[in-house]
Amino acid sequence: MANSKFEYVRKFELPDSCLPNVWMVVRIDGKGFHKFADAHEYQKPNDDRGLNLMNFCAQQTMNEFKDITMAYGESDEYSFILRKDTTLFNRRASKISTNIVSFFSSCFVFYWTKFFGTYELKYPPTFDARVVCYPSEKNLRDYLSWRQADCHINNLYNTCFWALVHSGQTNKEAEDTLKGTFAADKNELLFTRFGINYNTVSDMYKKGSFIYWSEVEETIVRMTPKGHGDSTMVEREFVRKRRQPTFFFGDIISDTFWSDHPQLLAV
Amino acid sequence: MANSKFEYVRKFELPDSCLPNVWMVVRIDGKGFHKFADAHEYQKPNDDRGLNLMNFCAQQTMNEFKDITMAYGESDEYSFILRKDTTLFNRRASKISTNIVSFFSSCFVFYWTKFFGTYELKYPPTFDARVVCYPSEKNLRDYLSWRQADCHINNLYNTCFWALVHSGQTNKEAEDTLKGTFAADKNELLFTRFGINYNTVSDMYKKGSFIYWSEVEETIVRMTPKGHGDSTMVEREFVRKRRQPTFFFGDIISDTFWSDHPQLLAV
Amino acid sequence: MANSKFEYVRKFELPDSCLPNVWMVVRIDGKGFHKFADAHEYQKPNDDRGLNLMNFCAQQTMNEFKDITMAYGESDEYSFILRKDTTLFNRRASKISTNIVSFFSSCFVFYWTKFFGTYELKYPPTFDARVVCYPSEKNLRDYLSWRQADCHINNLYNTCFWALVHSGQTNKEAEDTLKGTFAADKNELLFTRFGINYNTVSDMYKKGSFIYWSEVEETIVRMTPKGHGDSTMVEREFVRKRRQPTFFFGDIISDTFWSDHPQLLAV
Amino acid sequence: MANSKFEYVRKFELPDSCLPNVWMVVRIDGKGFHKFADAHEYQKPNDDRGLNLMNFCAQQTMNEFKDITMAYGESDEYSFILRKDTTLFNRRASKISTNIVSFFSSCFVFYWTKFFGTYELKYPPTFDARVVCYPSEKNLRDYLSWRQADCHINNLYNTCFWALVHSGQTNKEAEDTLKGTFAADKNELLFTRFGINYNTVSDMYKKGSFIYWSEVEETIVRMTPKGHGDSTMVEREFVRKRRQPTFFFGDIISDTFWSDHPQLLAV
Ligand SMILES: Nc1nc2c(ncn2[C@H]2C[C@H](O)[C@@H](COP(=O)(O)OP(=O)(O)OP(=O)(O)O)O2)c(=O)[nH]1
Ligand SMILES: Nc1nc2c(ncn2[C@H]2C[C@H](O)[C@@H](COP(=O)(O)OP(=O)(O)OP(=O)(O)O)O2)c(=O)[nH]1
Ligand SMILES: Nc1nc2c(ncn2[C@H]2C[C@H](O)[C@@H](COP(=O)(O)OP(=O)(O)OP(=O)(O)O)O2)c(=O)[nH]1
Ligand SMILES: Nc1nc2c(ncn2[C@H]2C[C@H](O)[C@@H](COP(=O)(O)OP(=O)(O)OP(=O)(O)O)O2)c(=O)[nH]1
Ligand SMILES: O=P(O)(O)OP(=O)(O)OP(=O)(O)O
Ligand SMILES: O=P(O)(O)OP(=O)(O)OP(=O)(O)O
Ligand SMILES: O=P(O)(O)OP(=O)(O)OP(=O)(O)O
Ligand SMILES: O=P(O)(O)OP(=O)(O)OP(=O)(O)O
Ligand SMILES: [Mg+2]
Ligand SMILES: [Mg+2]
Ligand SMILES: [Mg+2]
Ligand SMILES: [Mg+2]
Ligand SMILES: [Mg+2]
Ligand SMILES: [Mg+2]
Ligand SMILES: [Mg+2]
Ligand SMILES: [Mg+2]
Ligand SMILES: [Mg+2]
Ligand SMILES: [Mg+2]
Ligand SMILES: [Mg+2]
Ligand SMILES: [Mg+2]
Repeated sequence: MANSKFEYVRKFELPDSCLPNVWMVVRIDGKGFHKFADAHEYQKPNDDRGLNLMNFCAQQTMNEFKDITMAYGESDEYSFILRKDTTLFNRRASKISTNIVSFFSSCFVFYWTKFFGTYELKYPPTFDARVVCYPSEKNLRDYLSWRQADCHINNLYNTCFWALVHSGQTNKEAEDTLKGTFAADKNELLFTRFGINYNTVSDMYKKGSFIYWSEVEETIVRMTPKGHGDSTMVEREFVRKRRQPTFFFGDIISDTFWSDHPQLLAV
Repeated sequence: MANSKFEYVRKFELPDSCLPNVWMVVRIDGKGFHKFADAHEYQKPNDDRGLNLMNFCAQQTMNEFKDITMAYGESDEYSFILRKDTTLFNRRASKISTNIVSFFSSCFVFYWTKFFGTYELKYPPTFDARVVCYPSEKNLRDYLSWRQADCHINNLYNTCFWALVHSGQTNKEAEDTLKGTFAADKNELLFTRFGINYNTVSDMYKKGSFIYWSEVEETIVRMTPKGHGDSTMVEREFVRKRRQPTFFFGDIISDTFWSDHPQLLAV
Repeated sequence: MANSKFEYVRKFELPDSCLPNVWMVVRIDGKGFHKFADAHEYQKPNDDRGLNLMNFCAQQTMNEFKDITMAYGESDEYSFILRKDTTLFNRRASKISTNIVSFFSSCFVFYWTKFFGTYELKYPPTFDARVVCYPSEKNLRDYLSWRQADCHINNLYNTCFWALVHSGQTNKEAEDTLKGTFAADKNELLFTRFGINYNTVSDMYKKGSFIYWSEVEETIVRMTPKGHGDSTMVEREFVRKRRQPTFFFGDIISDTFWSDHPQLLAV
Repeated sequence: MANSKFEYVRKFELPDSCLPNVWMVVRIDGKGFHKFADAHEYQKPNDDRGLNLMNFCAQQTMNEFKDITMAYGESDEYSFILRKDTTLFNRRASKISTNIVSFFSSCFVFYWTKFFGTYELKYPPTFDARVVCYPSEKNLRDYLSWRQADCHINNLYNTCFWALVHSGQTNKEAEDTLKGTFAADKNELLFTRFGINYNTVSDMYKKGSFIYWSEVEETIVRMTPKGHGDSTMVEREFVRKRRQPTFFFGDIISDTFWSDHPQLLAV
């Protein structure tokens, strides 16, 4: 039963490497999370347990795939940015996207109880993933701006919508109330009808979650010989630097953040 | 903060639909499962808990994506065959592979305890996935034969290898013992040195696990009026047909199985 | 000025091989041939010089690229069918399409005077080309049927249109006359108004030009010794077989042609 | 004979648009030009008629496809650079490459006599074409440097090789003479054995042919009324600007040329 006469079927696997020297963005998005959120009684419009679980899984993903330089998440989605010069899986699109989405999905189930405690996960969640290539810094920043603008628009709308519904309107009535309104109208509505100053809403809800590698100094304690001929062991503090995936819940559309972190777009 | 000026970035998403009228095979494979098996003390060469978990997740995957007509699994991998005429996700390769691998990975964690009981899952597993297209029935069957031949070759080798190691040889010695041997030699070795008749080894180990939809008749009991004017409710048995993912642990290389199940290649 | 430090740019060339075991169809089509036909005073609706030049170039193309098993042409287009198992240029789509379209275009200019005599070619013509893969015999035949049906529909329409225009109608009037008519109406119109029996129109116009390899016997004459000890040289006839691209101006939609030529779909 | 039941075959045409915002380079290369050059008695190592014909066809190609901003040619090849933001054929790779290579091939035959006079073109030439995408200015310049370095290396080698052969060495002997030599050795050899100062060799041979759009002022003469009430027609000169494909036979590897023509990389 020699394998060789069947082995030709490998030739049907066609290569799918991405162009060199472009940023690759892997965006994952929960499948049917409208239903998933309902089934697991997510808070509306934002559920901290759910968002924190997403964020934690994204951090784990960055730790697992070190060529991810930044990530941005909101709602049921996360975008992972790979270094322009990454050679991860020889830049094969399907290898990159499937490994990332598989690990993320595994994490979501694995770390569920860390965020939902004893609240039961009712069924295994699914995420899709895609790879998109961006050639220029401007294109990449516009991509991230696109996602953050999406987050803002949805969150402002949803905040109003659920405030109206919680105050007694039907879904249909809430929709009608908001039809045709602009951002300013929605801010006004929140303030006058519900006493909510939208500026004070949590930044994570308004801006989404951006993650990047930053260097932190850690103080560790080690036993070392006292020195100068004295071999008695004593505790000594050492400071060491460690890179870790760090959150930023602020504006990534304007230039400020990027001029403060020039190294992020350098790779 | 209108979204529109950033929306052009969607144009960088390039289409990746598969050719119509070809079978799509999605093969997933565990990442670093050598280490994973060790870390979770998998039995060598075959761990029933691990294999049964893979099999169960594959069944769930077929239930979730009904256009999967068959699947074949061995070791840390599974191949899912999609109908030639499937329109699942408009045949978009990345959507198909990422949804399947994400769901499978989720299931693996979700159903872990069902097969491993209280034995702890130490870290979230990762699978990769790829889509391969096969135009002809012969190509598709050769693909499946390729995987089953691979299963056979590996399992015969591993059965010998671990028998030798368990009997006291070092890994290096076992390797040397097996170097250059043919299948017949290995069968002989198993029999004369360990009293193992390879024919009696579990079919699941030797042949891998093939899954296909088969129709089963279910007898269900429902309360119905007695009839003939008598409205007293009585229990009555009904037989209904249901399609379910069914295992076959036999040979899929020769023609027998396929002529017995002609409908499988019809779609 | 070592080349090596620039050579990395080759890595940006991404592979584009076609799936194995599918028919590849290369369809070329003249760019702006409406204008080209006008500029060169093509007969309307069909110009024999133009069509015969296309046909001759297609034959040359088959002689140049022997893995083309058949070809079909009409109007300013030609489709070339490559063997399912061709390894021409390692099945690289861009190599195949560019070589074919380049050679065809060269031929068009090179052989222009063979068909147009002293009539001047006013500017260099351009053709585009694309590769389309077909997995099954049915798909391939449907492709060819699609082109032949297109030829039929256009030719019947154009025959009526130009008959009306030549009889004095403006283009607009001819269009209006034909609006909403069916094939039967058009046949009727041709017959009653112009005494044209569409059945007697040239098959090349009605059906387009199909080319396939057929074996012909050639009688060649060679001088050979008379034999039986007599070395006087005498002329002798030999019959030898030669494969050549042969035209068929008939129906390729129904089964007849294909059952008469079973070898054509065998490769 | 409705077309509709066959029209589904269009679905087998898969999209192949290039990523937005990258330079597309279409490189064409003569097929078997070693043989072609021999068959047409090209001068060795450089034939002015052949090179000038290539250059003229490239200019025509730029006039035909205005989104080509620059081109670079040497030997039997030409590279055409398309604007980063071109929407030519919706950036479809196969449309772009086949149109360009078809037009170029047509031109080669069409303009043959303009450069070769009565010298007969023996058979229709073929060129292949490929599209390669470059995301950054540096990548694009490195691509052009790669081709120019290739030109230099080949030309220096060929100049020596043919000088040796013309001086009486066999091909094999000439090869052996040059084996292992560096550029400096080759310059030396040309000078000491053949009195050739390589610096004085034609720039077109040494550097290849770069073409870019430059603005030229044209003086045209038109009859216009004399003016001031006097309607007598008089000749008057007008200066108008016209963009035309212009040659540069110099160095495009170092920065000088590019800083002198900043607009070239701007699009
Ligand atoms: N209540 C609640 N719902 C959330 C939260 N985060 C996400 N969701 C839900 C609301 C949206 O319906 C859904 C995300 O929108 P999508 O466009 O991704 O839709 P969905 O996942 O249902 O469909 P898809 O399979 O992605 O096409 O997830 C949350 O924090 N709280
Ligand atoms: N002990 C034990 N090991 C198993 C069993 N099933 C699979 N494995 C392990 C043995 C193999 O080393 C590994 C599968 O081979 P692969 O070629 O997929 O290698 P691996 O997953 O380590 O690397 P990869 O990331 O796929 O390249 O999984 C089992 O039932 N028992
Ligand atoms: N008068 C005349 N015209 C012909 C003949 N063969 C082809 N043509 C012209 C009529 C059609 O307008 C044109 C072919 O139609 P296409 O759809 O290919 O259009 P065209 O090439 O103009 O545009 P394209 O660049 O292909 O999109 O060629 C012929 O024998 N006689
Ligand atoms: N004598 C002579 N030969 C030239 C000239 N320009 C180009 N050639 C020939 C020499 C080279 O053998 C050939 C170009 O090299 P290629 O690597 O493109 O090889 P070739 O076209 O033969 O094969 P290919 O089909 O491209 O793989 O063209 C010229 O000006 N004079
Ligand atoms: O993973 P391997 O080594 O068994 O072989 P492969 O799966 O064909 O290689 P890859 O995962 O890199 O496609
Ligand atoms: O999923 P949607 O509807 O938000 O939009 P999309 O993600 O762009 O669509 P798809 O998932 O089908 O690519
Ligand atoms: O044609 P060659 O040998 O100079 O090298 P290439 O052009 O890179 O090879 P191919 O034409 O096969 O892409
Ligand atoms: O060229 P058309 O309009 O007949 O239609 P098409 O050839 O399918 O369009 P395209 O040439 O743009 O692929
Ligand atoms: Mg989506
Ligand atoms: Mg979703
Ligand atoms: Mg979403
Ligand atoms: Mg692998
Ligand atoms: Mg594995
Ligand atoms: Mg494996
Ligand atoms: Mg067209
Ligand atoms: Mg046309
Ligand atoms: Mg046409
Ligand atoms: Mg080449
Ligand atoms: Mg060449
Ligand atoms: Mg060349």
